[in-house]
Amino acid sequence: MPELEPHRIVRLEDDAVVVLDQRRLPGEEVDLRCTSAAEVADAIRTLAVRGAPAIGIAAAYGLALAAERGEDLDAACAVLATSRPTAVNLRWALDAMRDDPSRERAERIHDAEVERCRAMGAHAVELFPSGARVLTHCNAGGLATGGYGTALGAVRAAFEAGRVAHVWVGETRPLLQGARLTAWELERLGVPHAVLTDGAAASFMAAGHVDLVVTGADRIAANGDTANKIGTYSLAVLAAHHGLPLVVVAPTSTLDPRAASGDAIPIEERDPAEVTARFPARNPAFDVTPAALVAAIVTERGVHRAPYAESLPREAAAAL
Amino acid sequence: MPELEPHRIVRLEDDAVVVLDQRRLPGEEVDLRCTSAAEVADAIRTLAVRGAPAIGIAAAYGLALAAERGEDLDAACAVLATSRPTAVNLRWALDAMRDDPSRERAERIHDAEVERCRAMGAHAVELFPSGARVLTHCNAGGLATGGYGTALGAVRAAFEAGRVAHVWVGETRPLLQGARLTAWELERLGVPHAVLTDGAAASFMAAGHVDLVVTGADRIAANGDTANKIGTYSLAVLAAHHGLPLVVVAPTSTLDPRAASGDAIPIEERDPAEVTARFPARNPAFDVTPAALVAAIVTERGVHRAPYAESLPREAAAAL
Repeated sequence: MPELEPHRIVRLEDDAVVVLDQRRLPGEEVDLRCTSAAEVADAIRTLAVRGAPAIGIAAAYGLALAAERGEDLDAACAVLATSRPTAVNLRWALDAMRDDPSRERAERIHDAEVERCRAMGAHAVELFPSGARVLTHCNAGGLATGGYGTALGAVRAAFEAGRVAHVWVGETRPLLQGARLTAWELERLGVPHAVLTDGAAASFMAAGHVDLVVTGADRIAANGDTANKIGTYSLAVLAAHHGLPLVVVAPTSTLDPRAASGDAIPIEERDPAEVTARFPARNPAFDVTPAALVAAIVTERGVHRAPYAESLPREAAAAL
Repeated sequence: MPELEPHRIVRLEDDAVVVLDQRRLPGEEVDLRCTSAAEVADAIRTLAVRGAPAIGIAAAYGLALAAERGEDLDAACAVLATSRPTAVNLRWALDAMRDDPSRERAERIHDAEVERCRAMGAHAVELFPSGARVLTHCNAGGLATGGYGTALGAVRAAFEAGRVAHVWVGETRPLLQGARLTAWELERLGVPHAVLTDGAAASFMAAGHVDLVVTGADRIAANGDTANKIGTYSLAVLAAHHGLPLVVVAPTSTLDPRAASGDAIPIEERDPAEVTARFPARNPAFDVTPAALVAAIVTERGVHRAPYAESLPREAAAAL
């Protein structure tokens, strides 16, 4: 199968932002056309496009579309900014578009995001031992980032460098982004893989079948506390118990120096019916992993190690 | 809703072992009629009846049916004994039927199993703090035991004693025994509950919403290592990390003194298609929790505390 091209994931056409509808994968590859900022916001809210960097890119295209259509840009910004609460890239992309809400600016943001993923991948390779058996969670691949991927980009770079033997894909309930999206991407890339239920990861660690855990992030606080898909914190505790490193791969735009710690990160709680429609349920979409459980944070600028509280805010400030 | 009666879960009629088909719950309450030992074995293999004590009871009824039908009893024993590999109760029930493969003997085994559950519940109450928020996994309720329940029987006894405020139900992928069966039983019992994805348990522990974890067991080695539904080991590590006790509730028939440790317990690996039919997957049905992570093991005879290596084999020997 061919590589997943960035414009296939999200692009701006003459009259619409077009996204590959991730809710229909892996069964169908169907485009969703969004003809207004509000429709882009709906696509983000309903997870047709998801993944912190990808929703930033979609929002940037959405604002460019709104400008071309003559929509009220303050209203367009507001509807896009509130489409999901946890990812900080969304706000970052809209801030970057404010002075120049043009098609060219949005495309530069998209191109730069993919380039950043390639840079993260290059930095991350050294963290993979030779023959690594990698466990990942959710989807931090090309689909989540507008191309290439953060955590999965790092896996891809390490695989191309001959360092990855196998990838364990946490299925990631309730919406199965691992089993539906990450497995689909790994199949395209030709990387050996197998899906595990989220509850099975611990016994594969205990049996010595995992060398490291690699995930993306939706927001990283100033002290290194990392918000990511629900279940990441569970893997972080399990990795620490089994002496395995947890590596977080995320662009600088994921850093939120205004959040002193994970306590300041809002956690989206989604519809309980995503878990079960029949009985009461709780459905937080994210959790926070304390920095103490994170072995390294890889951005496009390099590899951060604990303590994070100085180096992360410095990097965020330098990126402004 | 009325209490779930033991004969509703599994019973022997004139010409068939009849089980409430747990694969169809909670959507439909449908009986499955098994008219030979082989059909009972199929019902066990395909999880129409599941849960270590319940499959022991079903196998006992299956052998009684085989005796009444004039089947070859050695062949009937063999097909029933190999229907699933991990639970030891299956072998225990067949051993108990060998001298007297009668309907009355099977009914006594069933009645005694339910009485044992009530005894376990009575012993376990002291382990629940007042106002306990309990996390459980899979289904160790009336459905799994032919009535009342082991872990869920303990929850029920503690709830009736006014000690349980809320039950978090791990959904238990891939077959969702928590979300389908345990939630259904708790609804009948009027116990406040909410389903969580397996990956969400850790963040509810970290937020201080869990006081103890209570599970059943499919087999317990002589040293206390406990095999139970995949995901139990994950919860055990997470509970230890958060300073929470893990309590295992299981009848003496679950003890396997011939297994020196968890390494000697065979772990059933089921069809990967239960996880995902589209991509490669691994699907172990059980995992082993080291005794060091188990705060207490409750049987019908009382509460065991570490070190288990003396008291468990002594109890198993006394039960012979």
